[in-house]
Amino acid sequence: MSDNLYDDPAFFAGYSQLARSREGLAGAPEWPALRAMLPPLEGKRVLDLGCGFGAFARWARKMGAADVIGIDASEKMLARARSLTRDPRVTLRIARIERLDLPPASIDLVYSSLVLHYIEDFAPVAATLRAVLADGGHLVASVEHPLFTAPRDPHWQTGRDGSNVWPLTDYLNEGRRVTDWITAGVVKYHRTVAGYVNALIAQGFQIMRLEEWAPGRKQIAEHPEWADEVHRPPFLLLAARV
Amino acid sequence: MSDNLYDDPAFFAGYSQLARSREGLAGAPEWPALRAMLPPLEGKRVLDLGCGFGAFARWARKMGAADVIGIDASEKMLARARSLTRDPRVTLRIARIERLDLPPASIDLVYSSLVLHYIEDFAPVAATLRAVLADGGHLVASVEHPLFTAPRDPHWQTGRDGSNVWPLTDYLNEGRRVTDWITAGVVKYHRTVAGYVNALIAQGFQIMRLEEWAPGRKQIAEHPEWADEVHRPPFLLLAARV
Repeated sequence: MSDNLYDDPAFFAGYSQLARSREGLAGAPEWPALRAMLPPLEGKRVLDLGCGFGAFARWARKMGAADVIGIDASEKMLARARSLTRDPRVTLRIARIERLDLPPASIDLVYSSLVLHYIEDFAPVAATLRAVLADGGHLVASVEHPLFTAPRDPHWQTGRDGSNVWPLTDYLNEGRRVTDWITAGVVKYHRTVAGYVNALIAQGFQIMRLEEWAPGRKQIAEHPEWADEVHRPPFLLLAARV
Repeated sequence: MSDNLYDDPAFFAGYSQLARSREGLAGAPEWPALRAMLPPLEGKRVLDLGCGFGAFARWARKMGAADVIGIDASEKMLARARSLTRDPRVTLRIARIERLDLPPASIDLVYSSLVLHYIEDFAPVAATLRAVLADGGHLVASVEHPLFTAPRDPHWQTGRDGSNVWPLTDYLNEGRRVTDWITAGVVKYHRTVAGYVNALIAQGFQIMRLEEWAPGRKQIAEHPEWADEVHRPPFLLLAARV
């Protein structure tokens, strides 16, 4: 039986209700920024690490990707992805990112949305990604921003002027964090921005762009509850190539 | 007459009392980390942006640099630097970083310690640095960390568990900040980590390493008042090349 967080019935039920689950890519407010970091997909061999319900895999095929492999460690996520995907060029597999088994230089784009912060040890994963990418290949990924994952007590508190402040602590203390998100006791791993960047550079990646993403004005106008995100970006997006 | 902050008599007097002013490089706790990011200096043409009292310029010559140009916008800083430097291969000039006037491809290493956060518009400076660097040249720089420069109210406050938290706000609001440091009303400019990194990449720099620096265990043992810095790194160090 899976011990993956996303296979927990309560977590899966809650996760399935998020806008990004119900609406796919259109329900993810950071998607336009992440999409803008992608190379042209025409003819590319794409790997989606943590493919979830498969929305990106299907979109990549629509954009002309030759083949897409989606992997996910959650049986429930993958079952839903399979039920939504009827495309012989999309391969969906149960696999852990840490135990990727793909031929060297067989992929042109590795994509990963909000998954790598669940990985305890990023260096060997970066090495694996380098190995599966063909020369000239790209990595485009989003993670929970290190400012989001760092604090011991990750909840807005009141500053001396009465407005919300993000109580940053432990930014340089990389490692395990346990928080409540959808269900109690969700485990993730905090790394610094430099931690992500240097691990990729050490494997021969060239950093192409970083985005410290928060909702823009238009998005905040539609979701006023997001206004404070400008104080502490929730997501880090990065593009690199080999 | 200079309107440079460092020419303000009260500021200059206070700055002159800092460990890094009295002891030179050895008085700067981040120096070992910054030094570790430097390429070999033997035979290199070095430019020090914001050379202050000239400690790095003199050290670079000891390490074999062929020529060192130090520029600083403060007349007082440069007068002190000149009084301390007797080396015909070290050239010390009054100049603003924004109006650097050097031949293209004439420099092998640009070094800059805790100065670039005084620059309002970094993109044209990055373009200038690219132009003065010869192919294969390096940039190694430190700045106040964006987490340090971001907040409206940059003073530790008490978290819900009674310990110190850094009240992060306005991380994504780049621009002017006015703070008290040595004297009241010191103006600096906040940029995000991505802001620095992407501005360099846009000019053709390749990022080699980022360090989000805070004192290490040994340094904290000697200076227990630095213990909280692990929560919010005070300096960002970066190495790039062209």
